[in-house]
Amino acid sequence: MKAVIISIGEELLTGQTVNTNAAWIAMQLNHAGIEVMETRVVTDNKDDILRTLRSVEHMAPLVLITGGLGPTRDDVTREVLCRYFDASLVPDQQVLDDITGFFALRGRKITEINRDQALVPDKAEVIRNPYGTAPGFWFKREGMSVIAMPGVPYEMKEMVNKHIVPALMQKPRDQYLVHKTILTHGIGESYLAEIIAGWEDNLPENISLAYLPSTGIVKLRITAKGRHEQSLHKAIEEQVEKLLQLIPEYIWGYDNDTLEGVAGQMLKDQGKTVSTAESCTGGTIAQKITSIPGSSAWFAGTIVAYHNRVKQEILNVAPQLIGTHGAVSRKVAEAMAENVKKLLNTDYGIGVTGIAGPDGGSKEKPVGTSWIAIATGNGVSSRKFRFGDNRERNISRTANAALAMLIEQLKQETVNPPGR
Amino acid sequence: MKAVIISIGEELLTGQTVNTNAAWIAMQLNHAGIEVMETRVVTDNKDDILRTLRSVEHMAPLVLITGGLGPTRDDVTREVLCRYFDASLVPDQQVLDDITGFFALRGRKITEINRDQALVPDKAEVIRNPYGTAPGFWFKREGMSVIAMPGVPYEMKEMVNKHIVPALMQKPRDQYLVHKTILTHGIGESYLAEIIAGWEDNLPENISLAYLPSTGIVKLRITAKGRHEQSLHKAIEEQVEKLLQLIPEYIWGYDNDTLEGVAGQMLKDQGKTVSTAESCTGGTIAQKITSIPGSSAWFAGTIVAYHNRVKQEILNVAPQLIGTHGAVSRKVAEAMAENVKKLLNTDYGIGVTGIAGPDGGSKEKPVGTSWIAIATGNGVSSRKFRFGDNRERNISRTANAALAMLIEQLKQETVNPPGR
Repeated sequence: MKAVIISIGEELLTGQTVNTNAAWIAMQLNHAGIEVMETRVVTDNKDDILRTLRSVEHMAPLVLITGGLGPTRDDVTREVLCRYFDASLVPDQQVLDDITGFFALRGRKITEINRDQALVPDKAEVIRNPYGTAPGFWFKREGMSVIAMPGVPYEMKEMVNKHIVPALMQKPRDQYLVHKTILTHGIGESYLAEIIAGWEDNLPENISLAYLPSTGIVKLRITAKGRHEQSLHKAIEEQVEKLLQLIPEYIWGYDNDTLEGVAGQMLKDQGKTVSTAESCTGGTIAQKITSIPGSSAWFAGTIVAYHNRVKQEILNVAPQLIGTHGAVSRKVAEAMAENVKKLLNTDYGIGVTGIAGPDGGSKEKPVGTSWIAIATGNGVSSRKFRFGDNRERNISRTANAALAMLIEQLKQETVNPPGR
Repeated sequence: MKAVIISIGEELLTGQTVNTNAAWIAMQLNHAGIEVMETRVVTDNKDDILRTLRSVEHMAPLVLITGGLGPTRDDVTREVLCRYFDASLVPDQQVLDDITGFFALRGRKITEINRDQALVPDKAEVIRNPYGTAPGFWFKREGMSVIAMPGVPYEMKEMVNKHIVPALMQKPRDQYLVHKTILTHGIGESYLAEIIAGWEDNLPENISLAYLPSTGIVKLRITAKGRHEQSLHKAIEEQVEKLLQLIPEYIWGYDNDTLEGVAGQMLKDQGKTVSTAESCTGGTIAQKITSIPGSSAWFAGTIVAYHNRVKQEILNVAPQLIGTHGAVSRKVAEAMAENVKKLLNTDYGIGVTGIAGPDGGSKEKPVGTSWIAIATGNGVSSRKFRFGDNRERNISRTANAALAMLIEQLKQETVNPPGR
């Protein structure tokens, strides 16, 4: 089956909000074997929405819409859909009960504009919203489904996960799309392409490859198309095996793996713990590690030592070390890693010091210079990186490189490669 | 002028990559007075791209395309544009020099597939790429401009900032769009709408309002449309003044302000410093604060005390405090705030402890419970929050609430409201 996603809202067209909804919905549909042909963002102008509905109705039998179902006056999706499907608004007692309950749970009374949200199109199936006041609507006409959901991400996600995808999965399918993404770190796109060119040349007709570079990470997405899901999975696994022979040192994970997730799983499996001492990354490594549920099992804590005073007084880095080598140096990174490991009593310690920019660079140590050290039970290792001149990217790449170094270290102490 | 943005790449349609490019470009165009009518994401299939170009050519005189200009085989944008504009590829010496220089700077030799990127369409103006190997292309035909750029965000951004927007700004304009967004915290969308309903009713014809809720923050975007830019700014400022009378306690900033940016600027203006002691937020507050360039002037450091051991041994929180009240309690949050302030020798200390989930909740203290304390020279204040059951959102809302509390505290010590 094929689908089109339409996101409504001027905030998406002025750039104030990034359209994460479309990406998230696309991923869920993809996992359910539904191919997204196109996504569009349109204004909350009624005519624009109508025109868009008419222009996609022949592209795909499934259209998902987010946004414009809220209680305020700029929300017009319900009205436009009524016009498109020639439907009328009727009161729905269950929706009214849901909204009243929503407010009661918060110790509040229903407001007038929210009461209006209990009016629903008579030609649509209602999708209940446990997290908000706007219900979703599922219209069906001549083999075409149009599903409207609120734009608030967690309200929309609940509807997709609990209602829409399960209902769509019940339909029989004749074409399957299977993806697998191989995640690499430490090598650029062009170099990777040269190393694997021979392998790429020999890919079967129904298997395609895409390169997706991001900050320090290159993702290789393999896609197989065909009628038999199981054989597609098998065909992809064969190709992954070949890649594992070709570029084992660069591969750290698969699909939606994150560096922090893979590192966390390996630490958990090995019963090990980690702590971090961060300067230029300002807590980003800790933030990433603790984004993983259950991370308290392998993460003890962090000292963000932004001021040298904190490096000295809390992290016990010797002032003469900073004086002789500078705060951004191998010696200081290593002392940070070793001392945080000791202070917080963990198996591994990560120490990071660098110049994120835009200020603070010098000819010898330009903006983008980072030192990363990993302390283990067997001593400390460290590496110097030279990223670019963009603060945000320098922080992100430094944090990613530190996690990749930790994974490398953990790989050496395990027989199972990560992410399999 | 009006524009359409087309993003090419299957990674955007499988949801593996979020389309941040379109939002960013839309914001730049908007600031340049160019209204984005629609954004689309299409596959890297040649026919789909051609069909899309043909379907938008009458919608807007300006079409911006990102993606599909890389060196690998899945990149087809250049070829499709040649077909659409009936152009041929010719070698470009300056582009070849740029690519050769790009590799030389990195101590490497140009690869064969990158050398191919120096072939450019004979009917396009070349946009040089200082950060990568793919040049951009600007096609013009019968009053229509089609601009193709690489999908790598920082390469694309450089082209937009340095070349495209300056070139577009030279054209005369007859219609202006002026936006101003008022940022609020601590009140829900519906309640806000009820308080300001009277004001909204009396907005002039050419001024519109949109509500943009996100995690704990509701943004009110006011848009004015008309021929005279200066008078639109003035008209918007008059409305903002009225809102400042109506809801002063909820407003903390404007437009692209961030909580961390506003807090940072206030700390800087007042010559004050802050440190944080974080448990459930795992370094997120520190990460946000240090995302601001120059934050070393007001931020000393953080202790992420994920394990109670770290709360006790590094932050000196008394074990009996944790034993009696629990790690998630007013007393522990306050001790964390006061102790980090003292340990790191700052003017303010933020202490945060909570249950982010999914595990760790109890009937008394369910997942989503957070205690936030702010220690100042005049003692410590604290507040309890009850967010939802989503880990990511709980972390984000706790961090936002902590920064909002810091701004509140800083407001009390200044005569100038923030963000003006």
